[in-house]
Amino acid sequence: MTVTLYELCGSDPARPFSPHCWKTVMSLAHKGIDFRREQVPFTAIPEVEDGVGKTVPIIRDGDTVVVDSFEIALYLDRTYPDRPSLFKGEGGQAMARFVESWAATQIHTVLIGRILLDIYAMLGEPDQGYFRESREARFGMPLEQAAEVGARRFDLLRERLDPMRMMLKRQPFIGGGSPLFCDYILFGALQWARVTSPAQLLEADDPVAQWFETCLDLYDGIGRSVPAAV
Amino acid sequence: MTVTLYELCGSDPARPFSPHCWKTVMSLAHKGIDFRREQVPFTAIPEVEDGVGKTVPIIRDGDTVVVDSFEIALYLDRTYPDRPSLFKGEGGQAMARFVESWAATQIHTVLIGRILLDIYAMLGEPDQGYFRESREARFGMPLEQAAEVGARRFDLLRERLDPMRMMLKRQPFIGGGSPLFCDYILFGALQWARVTSPAQLLEADDPVAQWFETCLDLYDGIGRSVPAAV
Repeated sequence: MTVTLYELCGSDPARPFSPHCWKTVMSLAHKGIDFRREQVPFTAIPEVEDGVGKTVPIIRDGDTVVVDSFEIALYLDRTYPDRPSLFKGEGGQAMARFVESWAATQIHTVLIGRILLDIYAMLGEPDQGYFRESREARFGMPLEQAAEVGARRFDLLRERLDPMRMMLKRQPFIGGGSPLFCDYILFGALQWARVTSPAQLLEADDPVAQWFETCLDLYDGIGRSVPAAV
Repeated sequence: MTVTLYELCGSDPARPFSPHCWKTVMSLAHKGIDFRREQVPFTAIPEVEDGVGKTVPIIRDGDTVVVDSFEIALYLDRTYPDRPSLFKGEGGQAMARFVESWAATQIHTVLIGRILLDIYAMLGEPDQGYFRESREARFGMPLEQAAEVGARRFDLLRERLDPMRMMLKRQPFIGGGSPLFCDYILFGALQWARVTSPAQLLEADDPVAQWFETCLDLYDGIGRSVPAAV
């Protein structure tokens, strides 16, 4: 049985960029599950699986459809308990929610300012309209102004990744000796920036950059299979 | 068998304030282990258990002496596996290191600026000399100047607690449905500020403040048994 993963794309289907969809790509690879990827632009999401979700990732596994990267990870661990776990226990499942909230509030919010216009430029025409309208409503200002404000906040990134630097002195992954879903959460964020924007996020000798390179190598380099934006 | 916990105090042994020692108080209470608390000022730490550690908490459990709050939590789970777990699995153990690194780099670093002089004022005389010297070396400036710089950074606290606010919409504790060691990590930081300083950290209706109040009530209110600084 092959799982279908619906993932976000812009005008080029070969450059899937959604941080949340990358979490699911890594989750499926982690579990060793065969999957095919189907790229969907923003404005086609309502047609996926009869409009089951407002966002991707969405997976279909036989008769089961699951929406949301965290829900998918939970589903995969529940359904395939003999494959490597994505959480390694009840505590890991709970704390992965903390990591998710940390990445969403501390990292995504800083990255988006830097890559906002790069994402916009990658989208097909109907998606550009949707993206401008929805993001301008969210930020309460024109996209170009949000990008300017965001660029000024970008310096926050370095300090906000300090928890990773301190932790990496002790263990190679957030999941401990090997990566878990919690690692794919931050991986998704940095991969989002890598695929959409040529902006350099981190110095090459930054331990976080080295951790990210290691994650790009996982599972036959599935993350690296999409080249970085230039 | 009663465990002995050596914990930090200032001139008043009834007001133990170390964030790391509070993690261990909560860990021992969580495990339902009988313990007696022995207060130690900074400059007496080298005499504890023949100088086994440079910092407290230190515990003695029968013939075993353990230094460091995280090591103690690991020891307690290993030694008393039939008592409630502090990590709930291998993933939880690994991710608690991330929470520890997050609290150390993002929360402690902001709190210390606000409470630095309050801590100094609580210490006995030989400890004041030690504290001034060691902290001035760490900050590279006089204590009073570090407090001024710190006060200007204090506004960062609100945004840095956003991961907790987002997570608390989904689950009541970092550990999920009930608290784990990861919760005691942040609890320790906020308790440190509560016991040392009258500064108001959070609005009363802040979900993080409500989570902290819940933690103060745990285990017959052991955290609340030391009144807040006034």
